[in-house]
Amino acid sequence: MSKGLFISFEGPDGSGKTTQIKLLSEYLEAKGTECVLTREPGGTKVSEEIRGILLDRANAGMSYTAEALLYAAARAQLVAEVIKPALNDGKAVLCDRFVDSSAVYQGMARGLGVEEIYTLNEFALDGIRPELTIHLDLSAEEGLRRKTKQAELDRMESEPDSFHRLVAEGYRELAKLEPERIKTIDASLPVEEIQEMIRGFVDGLK
Amino acid sequence: MSKGLFISFEGPDGSGKTTQIKLLSEYLEAKGTECVLTREPGGTKVSEEIRGILLDRANAGMSYTAEALLYAAARAQLVAEVIKPALNDGKAVLCDRFVDSSAVYQGMARGLGVEEIYTLNEFALDGIRPELTIHLDLSAEEGLRRKTKQAELDRMESEPDSFHRLVAEGYRELAKLEPERIKTIDASLPVEEIQEMIRGFVDGLK
Repeated sequence: MSKGLFISFEGPDGSGKTTQIKLLSEYLEAKGTECVLTREPGGTKVSEEIRGILLDRANAGMSYTAEALLYAAARAQLVAEVIKPALNDGKAVLCDRFVDSSAVYQGMARGLGVEEIYTLNEFALDGIRPELTIHLDLSAEEGLRRKTKQAELDRMESEPDSFHRLVAEGYRELAKLEPERIKTIDASLPVEEIQEMIRGFVDGLK
Repeated sequence: MSKGLFISFEGPDGSGKTTQIKLLSEYLEAKGTECVLTREPGGTKVSEEIRGILLDRANAGMSYTAEALLYAAARAQLVAEVIKPALNDGKAVLCDRFVDSSAVYQGMARGLGVEEIYTLNEFALDGIRPELTIHLDLSAEEGLRRKTKQAELDRMESEPDSFHRLVAEGYRELAKLEPERIKTIDASLPVEEIQEMIRGFVDGLK
C-alpha cells in the first residue's frame, strides 16, 4: 500500500465496536497491513487527559459548547500525533469513534446542530476523514442493557434514556446522509457474522 | 445599572493585568457596582482542569489546533457558568485575558490566523463580547525580565523569546484594528498612573 487506510467505528456504547476492531485488525495484519488501533476521546497523553475531564461525573455542569470543543481538541491532538503519521506510513488506522460521534452526540442529541459540529471540527481534522465508517446499529435499550453490567457509568453514559434514544436514532439519520461512506450493520447479529460483513466492506475499498 | 459591564484585560505575561484589575474593582465597588474577577484559562472547575493541561510543561507536544480548541473550551465554560450569569445580574465582570489572547497567541504567534480563531470562538462566546478591553503594552523583553523572578515558567511562558516578541507586536496590531474597544496603555508607566487612565476609559463608557 502506498498510502494508509482510515476506518472509523461508530455506534452507541455497548454496540461491540472494540471487539470488531480487534477482529478486523487480525484480518488485516494477516494480510500484511500494519494496523494502528486507537480510540476517542483519547489515544495520546493530552487526549487522555481531556478524556478524563469529559467523562468525569463530577463535571455534570459542563456546558454543551465546552463539551463539543473538548471532543474536538482531543481529536485534533490524535490526528496530529497518531492518525496522520500512521497514514503517511501506509498503515491502517482503526479508530473507535471519530467525528461522527460529535455530529450525533453533540450535534443531534445535545442540539448544537450537525453542520455546526462538522464546521467546528474542520479546525481539528487537518483534512483527514475516514474512507469507511462502520456503524454498529443497536437499539438504545439493548445498548443500556449491555452497559449496565459495568461497575460504574461515566458522565456520558449516565445521561437519561431519552438521550441515548436520540443517539441511536441520530446514527441512523447520519448513515442515510452518507451511504457511500457509512455502512450500517445490525449489532444484534452474531459477532462472527458482523465481522464477515465488515471484512466485505473493507475488501470492497481496494 | 440595568445590565452588566464586561471588561477584559490583555497584554503579555508580567504586564500588570492582575494588579490593575484589583485596583479597578476597588474603584467600581466603592461606587456601588458589584464586581466579579476572573481569569483565563480558568475560573470554573472544568476550565481550571483544562488550564492544567494547557500549562503543563509535560505537554510540550501539544498541537497548535488542540491548544486553540482547549482555550476555546475553557472559555465556553467560563462564559456559560460565570460571565453570562454575572452580566445578567447587572454585575461588572473584570476578566484577566479573553478571546483576544487567543487571537494573538494562537492566531498570530502560532500562525493559525486571527479570523480563523475568532470564527472558532464564536462557538464558545454565545454572543458575549467585552465592551472595553484594556491592553497593557509591554515590550517582550521587559515582560520576560519581570517573569523570570518567578520560580518556574509554565508551558506557554517557556516559549522562546521570538514567540513573546510576536505576542507583544500582535497585541499592538490587534488594538489598531478595533481602536474603539481596545485601549492601549504603556505598561511601563507607574501603577497609579495606569489605573487613572483605566478609570477614565471606564467612566467614559457610561
